[in-house]
Amino acid sequence: MDATLTPRAHASGSGQELYDFAARLYPICRSITGAGVRKTLAIVRRRVPLVVHEVPTGTRVFDWQVPDEWNVEDAAVVDPDGRRVIDFQAHNLHLVSYSEPVCATLSLEELSARLHTLPEQPEWIPYRTSYYRRTWGFCMRARERAALRPGQYRVEVTGSLAPGSLTYGELALPGRTRDEVLFFTHICHPSLANDNTSGMSVATHLAEWIAHETRRFSYRFVFAPGTIGSLTWLRRNEQRLARVRHALVLALLGDPGALTYKCSRGENNEIDEIGAHVVAGRGSVIPFSPYGYDERQLCSPGFDLPAGRLTRSVNNGYPQYHTSADDLSLITPAALQESLETCQRIVEVIEDNARYLNLSPKGEPRLGARGLYGNVGGRSPAEHEHAMLWMLNQSDGRRSVLDIARRSGLPFARLRDAARMLEQAGLLEVAGRRTARVNKRRKKS
Amino acid sequence: MDATLTPRAHASGSGQELYDFAARLYPICRSITGAGVRKTLAIVRRRVPLVVHEVPTGTRVFDWQVPDEWNVEDAAVVDPDGRRVIDFQAHNLHLVSYSEPVCATLSLEELSARLHTLPEQPEWIPYRTSYYRRTWGFCMRARERAALRPGQYRVEVTGSLAPGSLTYGELALPGRTRDEVLFFTHICHPSLANDNTSGMSVATHLAEWIAHETRRFSYRFVFAPGTIGSLTWLRRNEQRLARVRHALVLALLGDPGALTYKCSRGENNEIDEIGAHVVAGRGSVIPFSPYGYDERQLCSPGFDLPAGRLTRSVNNGYPQYHTSADDLSLITPAALQESLETCQRIVEVIEDNARYLNLSPKGEPRLGARGLYGNVGGRSPAEHEHAMLWMLNQSDGRRSVLDIARRSGLPFARLRDAARMLEQAGLLEVAGRRTARVNKRRKKS
Amino acid sequence: MDATLTPRAHASGSGQELYDFAARLYPICRSITGAGVRKTLAIVRRRVPLVVHEVPTGTRVFDWQVPDEWNVEDAAVVDPDGRRVIDFQAHNLHLVSYSEPVCATLSLEELSARLHTLPEQPEWIPYRTSYYRRTWGFCMRARERAALRPGQYRVEVTGSLAPGSLTYGELALPGRTRDEVLFFTHICHPSLANDNTSGMSVATHLAEWIAHETRRFSYRFVFAPGTIGSLTWLRRNEQRLARVRHALVLALLGDPGALTYKCSRGENNEIDEIGAHVVAGRGSVIPFSPYGYDERQLCSPGFDLPAGRLTRSVNNGYPQYHTSADDLSLITPAALQESLETCQRIVEVIEDNARYLNLSPKGEPRLGARGLYGNVGGRSPAEHEHAMLWMLNQSDGRRSVLDIARRSGLPFARLRDAARMLEQAGLLEVAGRRTARVNKRRKKS
Repeated sequence: MDATLTPRAHASGSGQELYDFAARLYPICRSITGAGVRKTLAIVRRRVPLVVHEVPTGTRVFDWQVPDEWNVEDAAVVDPDGRRVIDFQAHNLHLVSYSEPVCATLSLEELSARLHTLPEQPEWIPYRTSYYRRTWGFCMRARERAALRPGQYRVEVTGSLAPGSLTYGELALPGRTRDEVLFFTHICHPSLANDNTSGMSVATHLAEWIAHETRRFSYRFVFAPGTIGSLTWLRRNEQRLARVRHALVLALLGDPGALTYKCSRGENNEIDEIGAHVVAGRGSVIPFSPYGYDERQLCSPGFDLPAGRLTRSVNNGYPQYHTSADDLSLITPAALQESLETCQRIVEVIEDNARYLNLSPKGEPRLGARGLYGNVGGRSPAEHEHAMLWMLNQSDGRRSVLDIARRSGLPFARLRDAARMLEQAGLLEVAGRRTARVNKRRKKS
Repeated sequence: MDATLTPRAHASGSGQELYDFAARLYPICRSITGAGVRKTLAIVRRRVPLVVHEVPTGTRVFDWQVPDEWNVEDAAVVDPDGRRVIDFQAHNLHLVSYSEPVCATLSLEELSARLHTLPEQPEWIPYRTSYYRRTWGFCMRARERAALRPGQYRVEVTGSLAPGSLTYGELALPGRTRDEVLFFTHICHPSLANDNTSGMSVATHLAEWIAHETRRFSYRFVFAPGTIGSLTWLRRNEQRLARVRHALVLALLGDPGALTYKCSRGENNEIDEIGAHVVAGRGSVIPFSPYGYDERQLCSPGFDLPAGRLTRSVNNGYPQYHTSADDLSLITPAALQESLETCQRIVEVIEDNARYLNLSPKGEPRLGARGLYGNVGGRSPAEHEHAMLWMLNQSDGRRSVLDIARRSGLPFARLRDAARMLEQAGLLEVAGRRTARVNKRRKKS
Repeated sequence: MDATLTPRAHASGSGQELYDFAARLYPICRSITGAGVRKTLAIVRRRVPLVVHEVPTGTRVFDWQVPDEWNVEDAAVVDPDGRRVIDFQAHNLHLVSYSEPVCATLSLEELSARLHTLPEQPEWIPYRTSYYRRTWGFCMRARERAALRPGQYRVEVTGSLAPGSLTYGELALPGRTRDEVLFFTHICHPSLANDNTSGMSVATHLAEWIAHETRRFSYRFVFAPGTIGSLTWLRRNEQRLARVRHALVLALLGDPGALTYKCSRGENNEIDEIGAHVVAGRGSVIPFSPYGYDERQLCSPGFDLPAGRLTRSVNNGYPQYHTSADDLSLITPAALQESLETCQRIVEVIEDNARYLNLSPKGEPRLGARGLYGNVGGRSPAEHEHAMLWMLNQSDGRRSVLDIARRSGLPFARLRDAARMLEQAGLLEVAGRRTARVNKRRKKS
């Protein structure tokens, strides 16, 4: 039975819980289409009420089209002695993803062109795909490759590569406004733990947490295969993109490396300020580049969404990347938990990073008379008093709390709290609301 | 008899003269209203023809209103043996400013809550106020506090806290244009030498000096109590604020610390460039913050005046700040003189920092034919020749002399002199004048 | 016979060829008018089809007017013993340029005021001019000056300083568009090798090379005397200036110092980015200043052309500057060749630094299907694949290839090649073309 988002103790997601969830997803043989994707989304649906979409093979998606659906039953290479020397059952990375069905006997020499290894890492199986050129192939440890003796090998790949559909999941969490925050995570990689059971686990638990918070923004989570999946979502949601205020791609969130925030194409979108603020002191900020995960599509010039990315190590940034060594020993509960908490912090700043308007802008208002400021003069003010002075002075409707944090050197939380107190005292209001209210009244009349 | 600004030897203000003037102001018990303020302004009026304004108690001033007027006759705490152990006659800091009249007998325990000390500085009396909460209290040396024995103490504060008026002084020095430069100095602190007899002394002598200079700008000096005084001036002069081109708050100008220019809220107003230019090499520039002196009000978002501040050490920036140790031994003639000269230099740059228009902008004009450039070619030009080339090249009406100084690396004075020579030769004119003249003619016809 | 630009092996200009050409120009006594200039331009015309313009004495040129033409036949100072102790035939720097004809006998004392020497460099003859004040004078080695004994000296300068014309040469090389790139080189210095036979030689060979390239831009070379020559050209071509997209002054290009790119007045014109890019790693970039060569005129505020300057050492930047020691031993074939190649590289970047428009901007287009991207997924892309992703992502019509090189850290040539491949694949086009085409069609109908 699928989960519904009923109130309960805020599931903040302990590291172990995040790890266990990732471990459940790890063994599944995912690709950009097929049963593995559906099984993955079903597991996510047990926690959050994902809507699952199926888009038929052949559907035009901008310059692309949805490919045939790939499902594999078994795959093996059998040596002259009848032993399964390459066995899909042992590790789903052994089969090049999207290999077409085949049944053949080849000499070792003929077979060689179909075999992928990593000579520098003889114990690791590489991850290889061939989504858009119909072929087949196998990946194996270089050490095992070296042990193959000449002779005739039987190759068998059973399953199907045929019209079907592309599957993705989507979760919408409406907030007080229709402005949207978009989280994207790719679900197309088979048994690679960090890439991307970590992202799927963090995204799932984050969605669960947000669902139980009160929200200014609406939140949308997309669990989709890389490239073709995000393109498909973009194609089917083009009219909705104007509402997207912030977007964040979640991937590679379980390894022990430090956090990395990757800027959006614009590099000075609010999400970039927020990302930089939240990872400050605990990680690094890297510039935009048009390579990586689905920010490639979200940030293409025809969309140019304010889409950053949160990872720990970056793609190609750790030796185990795209190999069988990206397994459950690479990811840790502590790293997953820090990643989730960082996402939660980002959401909090997104929610609270308002632009305020000082309603008493000529001179300072009397804070003492409102019980907001000490009554004995001559002493230097406390930090929360400085925070109120800063909020009042800077709140001309154009500066966000984060802008003021940067300028004043005061902590974001201190300024946000000051803003709330001043708002309650009738001295600040969120910029734009008054106008919004007036417009509403006009519409009615 | 009050001074009128009759021509005489330019009173540049020697350090000793500035110091003596501060010393005359030092003993007076000032507060935000009352006789002390009037007495102070009367002393200033002996040098410059200040207009003194009285604003009645109860007058609405934005979010505030003018408080009751405070005058104290005597104040003391008498110990069980009949000795005045705290004596306002000995030091006016002993009484919390704006203490209401009281006559009572209390146990030492009851009295304790009314006593302010500085445990870390047992020999210093702190400065404390309670302007807007009706109460009374005393300040004393921690060492003397420790010597008080249990018993009954008689407390007597005589004087009045009753409707009256708030007093401030204003001096307008009209120039060739109605564009104004505003100097603000607070006059509400009792016997604190640096804070702010230093500022009052520098402001008075600066006004005297400006009065004898020919001026492009009109200058206005406001001597007012902090916060409520500047708010009152702002309220009564709102329609005039659009004329303010530059403003500078003067305070803490007598201590031996290095000069500090504090930026206006905008941080890139012309006054900020000028302040930074003038203190360069002799002091430092600090960013804006909404705490300090009357820049808090001048720079509130509803006014946002281009108001910087000149101090030496900053508020809270030296241990004696707001204690009895801020006395005449803290300030020096040399520091006061450097502060005044810095203000004079700022005024000179304000006056000379014009934007010019090259009247012969196509190619270089013939400087040699006008006697402005050496006639023998092949040698490298002198600095004043470079200065002319820079002024001609950059004078498209948008760049100030200071902008050109920054870009060229040449001294401001060299460029200003070049500008004057080129203006005399008919090659430059101050930008805007031509338009202004044409408009004037149009209006007449 | 003058050269015409017929196709032949691309004359890239070997260092020796450049040096030999400079050496041919070196002995000629040039000034801002006269036979030396005409002789110089005739030599240039043997390589490129320069059009030579003659502008009569007295022609108004902005604030100036074309001066009398100066031609010298002979000049000498003869000592009491009848020896030519200063002899124009020995070195044309001996005569102050534009000295009027004179025949007189003077005492050594009277003569002294007319003699220019360099006491710190006793073996060097200084270069001096007096274009706009009618006078005469001689330059000599300080050592030889010291050897002159008292007595009567005969001075003889024969020739003419009389109405005639100012001469300059111009070469227009039309390209596919009317947008122009302007190269300026001064031709008014007598026997000074680096200043500026080097610039004339590089400009001549550069023109020759460009003539044999296919060109997006039209190119224009002006060989003119400094100041009055460039002013005259500007005056006669004012209506054409709006077409100038980039300009570069060429001078001092033969000495062994490192390359120097001097920015235009705007300092962020495209030519400044290009100049900085091309000299990066091999030279330095210096800011604009209104002193130097004809950038003084081109960058005066009434024109403000995007005119940079390429030199090696700068004017006044090497000890031999404006002395007889700036001779053929100061310049080297290697330096001349590097200078020419740098100019060629600048032209290439000017030509290729287009702004492209991604014609498939929504998501990434399928590069693999077009044979532009590897088919096996899971591996990290090659540099040329990254280059394509960057060009596609950034090509929104506002960013140049150079902008993208700076942002991506990829080499300009790699991105340009990627752009060409994507253009051939129909995925990019040069921005503005489509609009231009549409406009053309509209005009016709």
